[in-house]
Amino acid sequence: MPKQFFCAREELETSRVALLGIPFDATSSFRPGSRFAPDHIRLYSEGIESYSPYQHKDLAECAFTDAGNIDLTISNFSVLREAVHTQVIHDLSSEKKVLALGGEHLISLPVAAAYAESYPDLKLIHLDAHADLREDYLGEKYSHATVIRRISEIIGTENIYQFGIRSGTREEFAFGDQATHFYPFSLNPAIIQTVVEQLQGSPVYLTLDLDVLDPAYFPGTGTPEPGGVSFQELLQALLLFEQLKLVGADIVELCPAYDRSDVSTITAIKLVRELLLMLDE
Amino acid sequence: MPKQFFCAREELETSRVALLGIPFDATSSFRPGSRFAPDHIRLYSEGIESYSPYQHKDLAECAFTDAGNIDLTISNFSVLREAVHTQVIHDLSSEKKVLALGGEHLISLPVAAAYAESYPDLKLIHLDAHADLREDYLGEKYSHATVIRRISEIIGTENIYQFGIRSGTREEFAFGDQATHFYPFSLNPAIIQTVVEQLQGSPVYLTLDLDVLDPAYFPGTGTPEPGGVSFQELLQALLLFEQLKLVGADIVELCPAYDRSDVSTITAIKLVRELLLMLDE
Amino acid sequence: MPKQFFCAREELETSRVALLGIPFDATSSFRPGSRFAPDHIRLYSEGIESYSPYQHKDLAECAFTDAGNIDLTISNFSVLREAVHTQVIHDLSSEKKVLALGGEHLISLPVAAAYAESYPDLKLIHLDAHADLREDYLGEKYSHATVIRRISEIIGTENIYQFGIRSGTREEFAFGDQATHFYPFSLNPAIIQTVVEQLQGSPVYLTLDLDVLDPAYFPGTGTPEPGGVSFQELLQALLLFEQLKLVGADIVELCPAYDRSDVSTITAIKLVRELLLMLDE
Amino acid sequence: MPKQFFCAREELETSRVALLGIPFDATSSFRPGSRFAPDHIRLYSEGIESYSPYQHKDLAECAFTDAGNIDLTISNFSVLREAVHTQVIHDLSSEKKVLALGGEHLISLPVAAAYAESYPDLKLIHLDAHADLREDYLGEKYSHATVIRRISEIIGTENIYQFGIRSGTREEFAFGDQATHFYPFSLNPAIIQTVVEQLQGSPVYLTLDLDVLDPAYFPGTGTPEPGGVSFQELLQALLLFEQLKLVGADIVELCPAYDRSDVSTITAIKLVRELLLMLDE
Amino acid sequence: MPKQFFCAREELETSRVALLGIPFDATSSFRPGSRFAPDHIRLYSEGIESYSPYQHKDLAECAFTDAGNIDLTISNFSVLREAVHTQVIHDLSSEKKVLALGGEHLISLPVAAAYAESYPDLKLIHLDAHADLREDYLGEKYSHATVIRRISEIIGTENIYQFGIRSGTREEFAFGDQATHFYPFSLNPAIIQTVVEQLQGSPVYLTLDLDVLDPAYFPGTGTPEPGGVSFQELLQALLLFEQLKLVGADIVELCPAYDRSDVSTITAIKLVRELLLMLDE
Amino acid sequence: MPKQFFCAREELETSRVALLGIPFDATSSFRPGSRFAPDHIRLYSEGIESYSPYQHKDLAECAFTDAGNIDLTISNFSVLREAVHTQVIHDLSSEKKVLALGGEHLISLPVAAAYAESYPDLKLIHLDAHADLREDYLGEKYSHATVIRRISEIIGTENIYQFGIRSGTREEFAFGDQATHFYPFSLNPAIIQTVVEQLQGSPVYLTLDLDVLDPAYFPGTGTPEPGGVSFQELLQALLLFEQLKLVGADIVELCPAYDRSDVSTITAIKLVRELLLMLDE
Repeated sequence: MPKQFFCAREELETSRVALLGIPFDATSSFRPGSRFAPDHIRLYSEGIESYSPYQHKDLAECAFTDAGNIDLTISNFSVLREAVHTQVIHDLSSEKKVLALGGEHLISLPVAAAYAESYPDLKLIHLDAHADLREDYLGEKYSHATVIRRISEIIGTENIYQFGIRSGTREEFAFGDQATHFYPFSLNPAIIQTVVEQLQGSPVYLTLDLDVLDPAYFPGTGTPEPGGVSFQELLQALLLFEQLKLVGADIVELCPAYDRSDVSTITAIKLVRELLLMLDE
Repeated sequence: MPKQFFCAREELETSRVALLGIPFDATSSFRPGSRFAPDHIRLYSEGIESYSPYQHKDLAECAFTDAGNIDLTISNFSVLREAVHTQVIHDLSSEKKVLALGGEHLISLPVAAAYAESYPDLKLIHLDAHADLREDYLGEKYSHATVIRRISEIIGTENIYQFGIRSGTREEFAFGDQATHFYPFSLNPAIIQTVVEQLQGSPVYLTLDLDVLDPAYFPGTGTPEPGGVSFQELLQALLLFEQLKLVGADIVELCPAYDRSDVSTITAIKLVRELLLMLDE
Repeated sequence: MPKQFFCAREELETSRVALLGIPFDATSSFRPGSRFAPDHIRLYSEGIESYSPYQHKDLAECAFTDAGNIDLTISNFSVLREAVHTQVIHDLSSEKKVLALGGEHLISLPVAAAYAESYPDLKLIHLDAHADLREDYLGEKYSHATVIRRISEIIGTENIYQFGIRSGTREEFAFGDQATHFYPFSLNPAIIQTVVEQLQGSPVYLTLDLDVLDPAYFPGTGTPEPGGVSFQELLQALLLFEQLKLVGADIVELCPAYDRSDVSTITAIKLVRELLLMLDE
Repeated sequence: MPKQFFCAREELETSRVALLGIPFDATSSFRPGSRFAPDHIRLYSEGIESYSPYQHKDLAECAFTDAGNIDLTISNFSVLREAVHTQVIHDLSSEKKVLALGGEHLISLPVAAAYAESYPDLKLIHLDAHADLREDYLGEKYSHATVIRRISEIIGTENIYQFGIRSGTREEFAFGDQATHFYPFSLNPAIIQTVVEQLQGSPVYLTLDLDVLDPAYFPGTGTPEPGGVSFQELLQALLLFEQLKLVGADIVELCPAYDRSDVSTITAIKLVRELLLMLDE
Repeated sequence: MPKQFFCAREELETSRVALLGIPFDATSSFRPGSRFAPDHIRLYSEGIESYSPYQHKDLAECAFTDAGNIDLTISNFSVLREAVHTQVIHDLSSEKKVLALGGEHLISLPVAAAYAESYPDLKLIHLDAHADLREDYLGEKYSHATVIRRISEIIGTENIYQFGIRSGTREEFAFGDQATHFYPFSLNPAIIQTVVEQLQGSPVYLTLDLDVLDPAYFPGTGTPEPGGVSFQELLQALLLFEQLKLVGADIVELCPAYDRSDVSTITAIKLVRELLLMLDE
Repeated sequence: MPKQFFCAREELETSRVALLGIPFDATSSFRPGSRFAPDHIRLYSEGIESYSPYQHKDLAECAFTDAGNIDLTISNFSVLREAVHTQVIHDLSSEKKVLALGGEHLISLPVAAAYAESYPDLKLIHLDAHADLREDYLGEKYSHATVIRRISEIIGTENIYQFGIRSGTREEFAFGDQATHFYPFSLNPAIIQTVVEQLQGSPVYLTLDLDVLDPAYFPGTGTPEPGGVSFQELLQALLLFEQLKLVGADIVELCPAYDRSDVSTITAIKLVRELLLMLDE
């Protein structure tokens, strides 16, 4: 049994949030290794305080369980897809929200697909350095570089809100401009507040690619992109999302092998804490 | 005899500031090693310029000596306490201000206690990521996590000004809100200027826990806390303190083992330079 | 033959920009190793996208070649000087602009000297943490710490515009204040815009010492100086220079041995992409 | 609940060996951090094969459980001592052998002390770079540098067999020569075989300080001592101990913070596998 | 065009050996990243001397070319297989021997398969820490952990000679004992000399998994296995193979991301030099 | 004043050995940084025991002083040469033996040259991975790669004994074979004992390039060469030299920037301890 995230509860019945590790990184193109992230995050989770001074809540009072990791082989996305779908559908049917821990960004596809079955009017908020809107990547349809395009085919491009994008092909930027709600380069609080107001009442799934952070703040990732936001800016954006009906989320692309000072792991842990507290409403 | 900080003078009599290393880290909870900081700081001190373009002063003209390190065993706080107290009382009686180099934050307790004997109306300015206001920590009364609480018992909570705090228990945040002058999360220049005006004429001791800096700017510390200030923001705050009657200071929690690119050490050295120049008035 | 920067063209005749590596670091005082930078930059250049969302241009459509590295011994500046001069004069006579990759900052001297022969009214824009205005350094006339002083003797101090300087001797700051256009500490967009307007029509050579970036954003350099600008601030400044008649440029002082997470190399690569696109007009 | 060592069984009753983490490093003098070792070892334990080609046994068939970590504060040895003693006495009374995972070497004292109560004729085999025979260390009676001296006061110096020692004071080497069975510098198979024959029938506790390995083979430790043995030489020695009546063991002084390539952690895991298989007879 | 290995010739016609990079690591289970190895090896290749004092030959006089890298996507083995097969068949038809640079060990399968077409009586010498004899691995038939089993299905188990194996399942060790020529744990010169004599006259393909080296000597690999051979022992074995009719070879499993001091890369480069000189007969 | 090597005496008159730092690395070709070695060695010197169990002597009883570092600019060998010559002649005239700490290997030239003036029949023992016998290197006469050739021009090739060489050009190996006493590849105790007997009565200067050690044992050096000796083998050789009339020595080529786990620094410190004890006769 894996070491659990600190403060996780043993009682499954009364929990409203399930933390789920998805240790998959088979399509990573630049620097793989994110499949080790869920266990690293758990191992060091006691390194932070359980109390969030931002939300005035304490993880020790949060009704969440740690569901462990999806058991999977490393290179077969169709196996992964099936296993994740089954698990998420099961959690949703027990009225548990899921916070998925990648792994690479492709893991968001099966999670979001399962959510779309339960919430036909699902909206997706996407924080990332990369557009992930390619039709295919190196001939592959299912890749970390195509994941938002694939999700858009399920829930519709008009339900996708992208923030912080600063890298992609000319085609991806054009597609984003035309098809999705596309707010590149920064996490502008005024724009986010406007979007939050538009999304009132809708079920929202949040996918957070940690490389939206500048590599100064988050070096431990597979495809670092200079020019990103600070931790403060990301945190400010997340806290604005508290006003939403957040039904699920994921945090992806921590790559422990490149986290030379453990700071990226600690950063991911703090964001897990904040999202667990936001999901437990 | 230890290598001295660059530009330190040999003549003790004419010096007005003494740099004092306190290589103690026995209560560090997350990642120890800060006891190596004073010697690392000295070894690389020639890596920066002696001239401060911020203060238009040169360390080569600054009347300071390097008093070396307190000689101590690693795990006994009562021995440390006695040795530091003796040394600081001696320095103050020779009209020298002390700039102490930790080691962990607990070293501030004996330094500040000695200062409180000489300055009954002492004010403490505390820059840190952590509140350090616990009643006890893992059953220990004397710890890096309780140090400001212990100092507050000597000089009174009303004489304590805390800035930049972004981590602690619910109880610590409540205690700070009620008892100390508590300005968490950032180093707001307007608030600092107001405090500076309130403190005109009072003797002020400054304790600078380097983890007030965001880990992007200062990864080499034992308990990195994402969400901190930049070096520019910290420097701007320190320069505002120039208007105060600064009688002593310390810089704590550099942990060289986690300083993979030497940048944290260089950062600490620059701050030592700026504080030496501020203390030599 | 060295691996080329990604998207470089084979056809020399139709190219308008030549990327030239100058792997020289013999005068580095603090931490050498920048001579490995050009090949590191090339090796990882595929790690970024060819499309710049900032300039809406794609490197795949940019008319540049990779001219490889100057072949040189490591410790003899006069040999380097001659070889670089010959190469740059040749490139300029074939109507190619040069983007030089250091190596240490001293490499800018022979490049700028060759440009000054072709452009008698050359202006120099200098982005750096250090003034590099010393008369000599440790007895040496030719050093990374004297390079701008030497260039000023060729083109005149009145044609030099310095930004971001935050480290130097008292004499260097005084010299900058009096003799050059000296805008220390930050990259203020309003000031830059004013300078850009003054320089309309003049041929401009840009020398970019990567340590103008804060070490949080760029740890992989020989003389890290806390207190610098973010990547976003640097990028914003560079994009303002698009309005200029940019005739040549260099990027210096990446030191791969200190780039523990490869982020500094990726940062340098992105800046090479942006400058190549700016030079290809 | 901590992640378990791979292949650990859930059924406590039928297990004959218990793996027990003791995350204590409060007396480490040079470089602390070994308290993170037990959880690191568990996290990466799947990185090796369960089958030992040296013993022709498989961990999947080994009757061991993972008892997790002793719960303790970091700086109080008397608390640790009590907790470890209670746990080990309990395990021995349930006819389970203990394999303790440090932490620093001082953890061997309470484990061996509990064993000595159950086995009055206990012999200790000590593999280490350091003699650990000091009367006191920096004024402390209980330290990683005094641990074997303390154990000798319980079981008698004549029952202590030391191998591989290559560092200590003149007094420690003299004490070893006179009082214990002292075979410094190497792990000579012929000498070990002779000792093994002497010890036939006696209950033997093995304490393995991983720094007996040369730092080439094991850099991830707090006090690296060049001149040690290779992994092959250590393994060969351990396999000779298979002929003994091994009743308990510990493995100490892995310090993950200095294990830059994870090789030391993997090395420790392999040795845990071999010792578990040897203890399960 | 990629940077070439140092001393590579431009003239294809007169060359007798072709160095071929195969940057594939899609099935790596523990720590991926070996696909960066071929370019890293080339980048640092000037870091060693061209002269081998072991063979008294100089790479500057060796008739080899650098054929660059196979162009491939990262996750599709069937594409890789086809591309490698085509390239190797082409090289063999032009009477060039191939020295392939992985990438992970699975790349040996298509190279050896192409060789088997040209040399029906091919013998395989396999140096490795791992048996790589599994029937399948995590459900995959084609994996770094099955590669020698797959090759054995092409050329017959009786033509496979395995040395240095120290890790595997019970089944793999049993299969090796029964079916292949299996000499585990070390590289015994006497045994190797006997095998060399048996293989006189036969065409031999050598596959060298660098993890046969102990991680002390070669930390930069994906699955480090303590207990391996030294560089001296490996070199001594390779020099014995000079007596064979060596028709092709590969060197696999350098993982630059784990090569913290560049020593593993330099080690791989030296072995490439030695094998190039051995192949050019 | 620099921090001294631990146990150094203050009284100059009664000392018989002087430790002298020469922080010069201007001709390093592959990876510079050895000029930081003397201060690193001093900083961590307390990390080892003062007692040598190999020589049964204690550094606390050794009559040596720490003469600090030669003050020099980094790039001018003629200045270095003059300064080192003056210092060493002075030490020899006060009947002190010198143990010089590099810096790169070129520093041995001025030290050995000064010794040759005092000892016309000086013999040189050279332990190294590299022959250092080039006539010139990249056009430079004075280089780390030519240093033994230059010394041979002063004392005669017949007085030079080289051990452990495993890298060089064909010309260097030929020159060594013909002109010097050349025992490449290993440190064979039988050969060394024979040489020791030949050298009885002659004054011997020992130059120890730390890269004679295999990079497994000593990664922290500028030009790592796989295939070297272990620390044990080096130590055994050094202890054989105890029978000689050792009049001076140097230890060169520690490069702290590549010493990721501090093991190379500790290794150098141990060798300094052993050589200080050997020189104090």
